[in-house]
Amino acid sequence: MSDVALVAVASILGAAVCIAIGSIGPALGEGRAASQALNAIAQQPDEANTITRTLFVSLAMIESTAIYCFVVSMILIFANPFWDRVLATAGG
Amino acid sequence: MSDVALVAVASILGAAVCIAIGSIGPALGEGRAASQALNAIAQQPDEANTITRTLFVSLAMIESTAIYCFVVSMILIFANPFWDRVLATAGG
Amino acid sequence: MSDVALVAVASILGAAVCIAIGSIGPALGEGRAASQALNAIAQQPDEANTITRTLFVSLAMIESTAIYCFVVSMILIFANPFWDRVLATAGG
Amino acid sequence: MSDVALVAVASILGAAVCIAIGSIGPALGEGRAASQALNAIAQQPDEANTITRTLFVSLAMIESTAIYCFVVSMILIFANPFWDRVLATAGG
Amino acid sequence: MSDVALVAVASILGAAVCIAIGSIGPALGEGRAASQALNAIAQQPDEANTITRTLFVSLAMIESTAIYCFVVSMILIFANPFWDRVLATAGG
Amino acid sequence: MSDVALVAVASILGAAVCIAIGSIGPALGEGRAASQALNAIAQQPDEANTITRTLFVSLAMIESTAIYCFVVSMILIFANPFWDRVLATAGG
Amino acid sequence: MSDVALVAVASILGAAVCIAIGSIGPALGEGRAASQALNAIAQQPDEANTITRTLFVSLAMIESTAIYCFVVSMILIFANPFWDRVLATAGG
Amino acid sequence: MSDVALVAVASILGAAVCIAIGSIGPALGEGRAASQALNAIAQQPDEANTITRTLFVSLAMIESTAIYCFVVSMILIFANPFWDRVLATAGG
Amino acid sequence: MSDVALVAVASILGAAVCIAIGSIGPALGEGRAASQALNAIAQQPDEANTITRTLFVSLAMIESTAIYCFVVSMILIFANPFWDRVLATAGG
Amino acid sequence: MSDVALVAVASILGAAVCIAIGSIGPALGEGRAASQALNAIAQQPDEANTITRTLFVSLAMIESTAIYCFVVSMILIFANPFWDRVLATAGG
Amino acid sequence: MSDVALVAVASILGAAVCIAIGSIGPALGEGRAASQALNAIAQQPDEANTITRTLFVSLAMIESTAIYCFVVSMILIFANPFWDRVLATAGG
Amino acid sequence: MSDVALVAVASILGAAVCIAIGSIGPALGEGRAASQALNAIAQQPDEANTITRTLFVSLAMIESTAIYCFVVSMILIFANPFWDRVLATAGG
Amino acid sequence: MSDVALVAVASILGAAVCIAIGSIGPALGEGRAASQALNAIAQQPDEANTITRTLFVSLAMIESTAIYCFVVSMILIFANPFWDRVLATAGG
Amino acid sequence: MSDVALVAVASILGAAVCIAIGSIGPALGEGRAASQALNAIAQQPDEANTITRTLFVSLAMIESTAIYCFVVSMILIFANPFWDRVLATAGG
Repeated sequence: MSDVALVAVASILGAAVCIAIGSIGPALGEGRAASQALNAIAQQPDEANTITRTLFVSLAMIESTAIYCFVVSMILIFANPFWDRVLATAGG
Repeated sequence: MSDVALVAVASILGAAVCIAIGSIGPALGEGRAASQALNAIAQQPDEANTITRTLFVSLAMIESTAIYCFVVSMILIFANPFWDRVLATAGG
Repeated sequence: MSDVALVAVASILGAAVCIAIGSIGPALGEGRAASQALNAIAQQPDEANTITRTLFVSLAMIESTAIYCFVVSMILIFANPFWDRVLATAGG
Repeated sequence: MSDVALVAVASILGAAVCIAIGSIGPALGEGRAASQALNAIAQQPDEANTITRTLFVSLAMIESTAIYCFVVSMILIFANPFWDRVLATAGG
Repeated sequence: MSDVALVAVASILGAAVCIAIGSIGPALGEGRAASQALNAIAQQPDEANTITRTLFVSLAMIESTAIYCFVVSMILIFANPFWDRVLATAGG
Repeated sequence: MSDVALVAVASILGAAVCIAIGSIGPALGEGRAASQALNAIAQQPDEANTITRTLFVSLAMIESTAIYCFVVSMILIFANPFWDRVLATAGG
Repeated sequence: MSDVALVAVASILGAAVCIAIGSIGPALGEGRAASQALNAIAQQPDEANTITRTLFVSLAMIESTAIYCFVVSMILIFANPFWDRVLATAGG
Repeated sequence: MSDVALVAVASILGAAVCIAIGSIGPALGEGRAASQALNAIAQQPDEANTITRTLFVSLAMIESTAIYCFVVSMILIFANPFWDRVLATAGG
Repeated sequence: MSDVALVAVASILGAAVCIAIGSIGPALGEGRAASQALNAIAQQPDEANTITRTLFVSLAMIESTAIYCFVVSMILIFANPFWDRVLATAGG
Repeated sequence: MSDVALVAVASILGAAVCIAIGSIGPALGEGRAASQALNAIAQQPDEANTITRTLFVSLAMIESTAIYCFVVSMILIFANPFWDRVLATAGG
Repeated sequence: MSDVALVAVASILGAAVCIAIGSIGPALGEGRAASQALNAIAQQPDEANTITRTLFVSLAMIESTAIYCFVVSMILIFANPFWDRVLATAGG
Repeated sequence: MSDVALVAVASILGAAVCIAIGSIGPALGEGRAASQALNAIAQQPDEANTITRTLFVSLAMIESTAIYCFVVSMILIFANPFWDRVLATAGG
Repeated sequence: MSDVALVAVASILGAAVCIAIGSIGPALGEGRAASQALNAIAQQPDEANTITRTLFVSLAMIESTAIYCFVVSMILIFANPFWDRVLATAGG
Repeated sequence: MSDVALVAVASILGAAVCIAIGSIGPALGEGRAASQALNAIAQQPDEANTITRTLFVSLAMIESTAIYCFVVSMILIFANPFWDRVLATAGG
């Protein structure tokens, strides 16, 4: 098993696991927040604007943790410094 | 076990695990949001429009984390830079 | 263990695990949404149409994550680019 | 361990695990939906028809994810392209 | 470890695990549905017929996922195509 | 480790795990159904007959999944086709 | 490691695990049923006879899954056909 | 590692795990039943006799699954047929 | 690794795991029963005697499963027949 | 790896795991009992004496399972018969 | 497997796991806080300002733990002192 | 790997795992007790003295299980008899 | 695998796992506290000051456990005494 | 792998795991206590002083278990007697 293959395997599995596990928490958290927002609108239709605005800010905040995972996943696939270095060594 | 086979195996398993685990959170989160939306409509039928609109925006937001996993899964199968490189090396 | 067998094994296990794990979340999420819809109909029979329509849109949205897994599973069995490449190499 | 035996083992275990894990989610989801439907009928006997119809559509939707797993399981046992290919190679 | 023994071991363990894990979900789901049906009968004794009928249809639907597992388990023990093929090879 | 011992070990462990794990779901499901039946009798003593009858049908239905596991377990111990074949080979 | 020791180890561990895991579900299920029966007696002391009778039938039904495990465990220790066969071979 | 040591190790670990895991379910189940009995006595002090009697029968029933585990554990330590046979062989 | 050391290691780990895992269930079960007893006393101070007596009988019953584990643990450390036999062999 | 080191390692890990896992159940059980006692005092301040006394007896009972684990842990560290025997052999 | 590849693999997997697991807690915690904030606004629309302000401070506090994980993940990819040192050694 | 290093590794990991796992139960149990005490004070401010006193006795009791773990952890690091003996042997 | 690489790998994985797992508890705990604070403000707007102040002290207290993990993680990356020592040895 | 590296790896991983796992329980417990304190203040603003004081004592008590883990973690990194001894041996 050459070094190039080893780093490639680690990058592939790392990227896949990173976004897969990283999507569980945000999806559940957003589901909870959205679910409560719908409940709040049903209770106080007059406050729908305030509720919707607070919901979207919160969703953006929660989504940010999923974005972190997506960013790391993309970095590992397309801008991986370890891969670049190992390729340079192998091609040297 | 050649390098080509090793990277192929990692890509196959990575893609499968990525979308499999990545579908748990969004599906549960969407189920929760939809469930509460139906409850809210039953409580405030007059607000059905506002509730449905907020629901769809929330579903789209939650679905986005599943889309991230699907995108990574497709990249690993059809546009995998590590696979391309290893093939180029093996064929060189 | 030849390369061909190794990639075949990975594809078989990947496809099986992908749809197996990927069916847990959507099934539970749909069960929750459907369960609440039936409850909502019992509370507000007059809104049965709105509730049923929202339910079906939500079920389709949740089902989409199961579809993603099914698509990846089918790709791994019937349109697997890694398998095609390894076969071509082995047969070359 | 020959290639033929290896692919056979993977297919057997894959098929078994696929339908075994894949039956957990749908069974629980259907149990929840059916349970709530019975509750709804007890609350609103006059709406039994609407409730039953919505229940059956929902059960079919949830059952579909179990069907996906069953289909993959059957494909792995009786129409496995990897097995056919490996047999052809071994018999060639 | 000969190929025959290897496939036999995989078939035995596959069949056992398949029905063992596959019985958890349906049993819990049926328990939930039956439990709610009994509750519904206690609340609305006049609807006992409708409730019982809906319960039995639901139980049959849920039981179907357990049947899938039992079918796969029986196929693996008594009509296993991989076993037949490996025996034919070993006896050839 | 001879083939005979290997198949014997797999059969023993398979039979033990099959009924052990397979008894969890049915026992919990039956416990839930019985528990609710007792509650229903306390609420509607006049319907004790209907409730008891529905309970016994449900228990039989749930027990059936435990029976499947017991049947597979007995087959693996006393009517195991793989064991018969391996013995025939070893004794041939 | 001789064949005799291997089968003995598998039988010992199989018997121990079988009854150990197999006692979790029935014990919890019986605890739930008994707990609800006591509650029902407190609510409807006049129905104590019906409740107790239904409880005992249910406990027997749930206990049956524990009995299955105990039977398999005893078979593995005292009437194990694989052990008999391996001993016969070793002593032959 | 001789056969005698191997069977001894399996017996020791089997006996320890058997009673350890086997005590979780009964203890929790008995705790639940006893807890509800105390609650029932507080609600209906006049029925303390019926409640206590039903409680003790239930506790005995639940305890029986712990007894099964204890019996298997004792058999494995003090009346283990596999150990006897292996000792006889080793001493022969 | 000699036989003596192997059996000693198994006995040490078996004894430690046995009482460690075996204390989880009884402690939780007793905590639940005691907690409900305190609640019952607060609701019905006049029945404190009956409640306390039933509590102590129940605690003794639950404690018995912890005692089983402690007994097995002590046997494995101080009266282990496998250890005695292996020592006799080693010293012979 | 000598026998002495092996037994020492097993004793160290056994003692650490034994008290670590063994403290989870009692701590949670005592927390639950204490929590309910405080609630009971708030509901019935006049019964504070009876409640406190019952609480302390219960805490002592629950603590006993933690004590069993601590005793086994101390025996494994300071009065380990296996260690003594192995040292005697090594020093002989 | 050279040292360079080993450190690269560890860094890739470490970074991926760090942010993946580290996003579960914050996302769930933020979802809970946001969900309750929406509920609070529905109950006390007049306090929307105070509630929103407290929510944002809390979200920032919770987000900080996700930021810690993101920082460590970035350090491991782009400013890893172990990688720099190993590269220096390998290139020396 | 020398004996000295092996015992050192076991002691380090044992001490770390012991206090780490051993702090989960007490912390959760104390959190529950303290939480209920605060609730009780809010319900019965006049009983604050009795409640606080009972709380502190309970916290001390629960803390004791954490102390056991800390003591074992310290013994393993600073007064480890196995380490002393192995050092003596190595230095002899 | 040289000593330097081994210590580097352990430090990288240790730092990543430390902050990843260490962020779960604090994030959930802070989410719970913040969630209840928002609820309390909605119930008692006049006490917003006291509630907010107590909340911030509590958040700081909970955050401290996340800080411990972050500190250990930073120490392992940037001020690791084991790394310094191993480098000194390797460079000596 | 030299002894020095082995002990260093164990110390690094032990310290990281110790504080990581050890922060879960205290953070959740403190979150629960703080959450209930805020609720109590909202219910009884007049008792804010007593509640806050009891809260801080409880938080300190719960924090102590996190401190134990932090102390063990620091000892393993900066005052590790096993490391000192192994270094002395290696440098001797």
